[in-house]
Amino acid sequence: MLEQMGKAAKLASYQLAQCSTATKNHVLTVIADLLEKHSTIILKANEQDMLEAKSQGLSAAILDRLLLTKERLIAIANDVRKVISLTDPIGEIIDGSTLENGLKLQRNRVPLGVIGVIYEARPNVTIDIATLCLKTGNAAILRGGKETIHTNTATISIIQQALDKVGLPKTAIQSIDNPDRKYIHELLKLDKYVDMIIPRGGSALHKLCREYSTIPVITGGIGVCHIFMDESMDFDSALPIIINAKTQRPSTCNTVETLLVHTKIANEFLPKLSQIMADNGVVLHADQESFAILESGVANVFPIEDTELRQEWLSKDLNIVIVNSLELAVDHIREYGSGHSEAILTRSLANAEKFVNLVDSAAVYVNASTRFTDGGQFGLGAEVAVSTQKLHARGPMGLEALTTYKWIGFGDDLVRQ
Amino acid sequence: MLEQMGKAAKLASYQLAQCSTATKNHVLTVIADLLEKHSTIILKANEQDMLEAKSQGLSAAILDRLLLTKERLIAIANDVRKVISLTDPIGEIIDGSTLENGLKLQRNRVPLGVIGVIYEARPNVTIDIATLCLKTGNAAILRGGKETIHTNTATISIIQQALDKVGLPKTAIQSIDNPDRKYIHELLKLDKYVDMIIPRGGSALHKLCREYSTIPVITGGIGVCHIFMDESMDFDSALPIIINAKTQRPSTCNTVETLLVHTKIANEFLPKLSQIMADNGVVLHADQESFAILESGVANVFPIEDTELRQEWLSKDLNIVIVNSLELAVDHIREYGSGHSEAILTRSLANAEKFVNLVDSAAVYVNASTRFTDGGQFGLGAEVAVSTQKLHARGPMGLEALTTYKWIGFGDDLVRQ
Repeated sequence: MLEQMGKAAKLASYQLAQCSTATKNHVLTVIADLLEKHSTIILKANEQDMLEAKSQGLSAAILDRLLLTKERLIAIANDVRKVISLTDPIGEIIDGSTLENGLKLQRNRVPLGVIGVIYEARPNVTIDIATLCLKTGNAAILRGGKETIHTNTATISIIQQALDKVGLPKTAIQSIDNPDRKYIHELLKLDKYVDMIIPRGGSALHKLCREYSTIPVITGGIGVCHIFMDESMDFDSALPIIINAKTQRPSTCNTVETLLVHTKIANEFLPKLSQIMADNGVVLHADQESFAILESGVANVFPIEDTELRQEWLSKDLNIVIVNSLELAVDHIREYGSGHSEAILTRSLANAEKFVNLVDSAAVYVNASTRFTDGGQFGLGAEVAVSTQKLHARGPMGLEALTTYKWIGFGDDLVRQ
Repeated sequence: MLEQMGKAAKLASYQLAQCSTATKNHVLTVIADLLEKHSTIILKANEQDMLEAKSQGLSAAILDRLLLTKERLIAIANDVRKVISLTDPIGEIIDGSTLENGLKLQRNRVPLGVIGVIYEARPNVTIDIATLCLKTGNAAILRGGKETIHTNTATISIIQQALDKVGLPKTAIQSIDNPDRKYIHELLKLDKYVDMIIPRGGSALHKLCREYSTIPVITGGIGVCHIFMDESMDFDSALPIIINAKTQRPSTCNTVETLLVHTKIANEFLPKLSQIMADNGVVLHADQESFAILESGVANVFPIEDTELRQEWLSKDLNIVIVNSLELAVDHIREYGSGHSEAILTRSLANAEKFVNLVDSAAVYVNASTRFTDGGQFGLGAEVAVSTQKLHARGPMGLEALTTYKWIGFGDDLVRQ
């Protein structure tokens, strides 16, 4: 089955690669309109997913993630319209020159080809990824979570209707409807047809893709983010940044998980932190040294365990670790971080420079919240995923991350000497 | 053992990432000087490799590849000096701006970290790769072919002496000396420490890396390259390009393997081709239709087998296939090509444009030899490898392919709204 899908996707990708920006925007317009026109069908499908999810006793957080409402659907349609307004990266001449050997050489931006996307239970991802792939002239094979199977089937049908209406092959966007996990394994080995795999989900999914895939994988999405507060930072300025980084949306990957505090200010700062964390409903997990200080504070505090330093809380929990120097803060980040986002809070130019140079993460901040690591915030217009690996794309991935380039050489009947 | 090497390489990479261009160039200068100073030691080690290779009855071509001479060694030292003269890409600010949300955001070019390189029996690759990695502030773990084990050990010792002399950790460049293949497997799973794997060898090696590695792999190096000659091309201009693409250095990956000829000119053109191919010692492998024409010519000709259309000849052998249209030529390339390099010979602007747009290979040429696909020819100054995948780097990879970027955000105590 997957062999057939792959072949069809590859063929469709050849056609998409030749589409004008106008045609690609046309299909996106039709998708947005059909989403609104057929909203009752989609919402009915979503109701069925919700019913099954409730009967399985899934958590309230997951149920809220699964839920589509009329408002959410309109927001999704408007997100599609936003992608229409983005500049099409395809066709850009990245660079070019006439070489000493006489060759007129240029690099042209072209689509990647076929993108495989494996994601969990978020009903918006299907439209989101399909839209970004179509805008950049890529075909896609999608494999959504089984919890949203009815919603996904309904939205895929909308996308395929739109493709058909514009005269493009329906196979440009296909989905694997069978929930059997063996099809994920098959997809990961389809290197003859698929050019890139994007997993959007937890660390187990990323690990599976890294281990099984014979196709290049963009791993990321896991954020064990740190803020280091050095001895020069004033408390009143630091606290709002820490609160923002922890509480603005705790379930996101760019939320801070561990606050590293310089030993020189710990005695004075931690009681103040305890107060404000209690006010904001944040639970603290403290190392031995900071536990001794925080124990008498007002915040809820627990002694930390080593494994907790390596995990995403995805909740209003914050680790507190005291360090004796900036270098030790960097060592801690290298050992426990996931290479996502880290920040230093400082008034020292030397420390800011040192931290930025020594920390090897996708995004490094000086006096700013880690919450900024996001395609929208970074001005990319859209976000395909957040990469924490170093090849191809690092950090928030915009449309450009769905492209590659082709070297084109023009000669005047030129041979190599 | 590999765990230890990986850990040491990662630590060394942190130090290398902070090195100035002057320091990196200094270590390269010392390497070049030591290579010349200790040439007798290296040549003696190479003699031993040659002796063992001869006793194993390796082919003359492989023996020549293994052989180091005083001249070749001086050429390698001079290649190191050429890398010194290249611009250091590290530290470049790729782009940056102040965003609407107030964040001052920039992307800075940084080293990848640790590169794993697995290569076959070419004694120059050790110095080559080590030099390019050091220039870009990367550490490397090398695994050379067992046929050059003595030469590699001698050159690695030179590199480590140079690192030591300049005050850098010897572990910046390490090699796996044990010929047991299990260490290749271990290296491919060392994702905790290694950021990229570059295989430099045949298709079996690339396949192994794609299937076993949990680290991103740059695959490439396999070139099943095509030239399509359309009905508008004049014969006298076409023949020198075809000869150049086939015979200038037949063992390279950018050599043409299959010539696709438009049916309209086949009857007239193929006899001329037969003559000139015979003069140049090229053997032809013809499809049914072209065999009928070529059979009566002067060139050595065989009927082609389907598998021969998918393989690199690496010799003076050329496949001939007649096609009825440009579109069918493109279909053939999509089916049988390796995505490396293809060329069209034409006098038609429309055909040139169509071919360039439809062919999805790393390099596409109009009226130029496929032999140009090379880091040196493309003006990259050096060549790490030639990639035929689409992520991260495509085609010849220069120094930039050994780098990634880091997003750096400066805020004025900035929080996300």
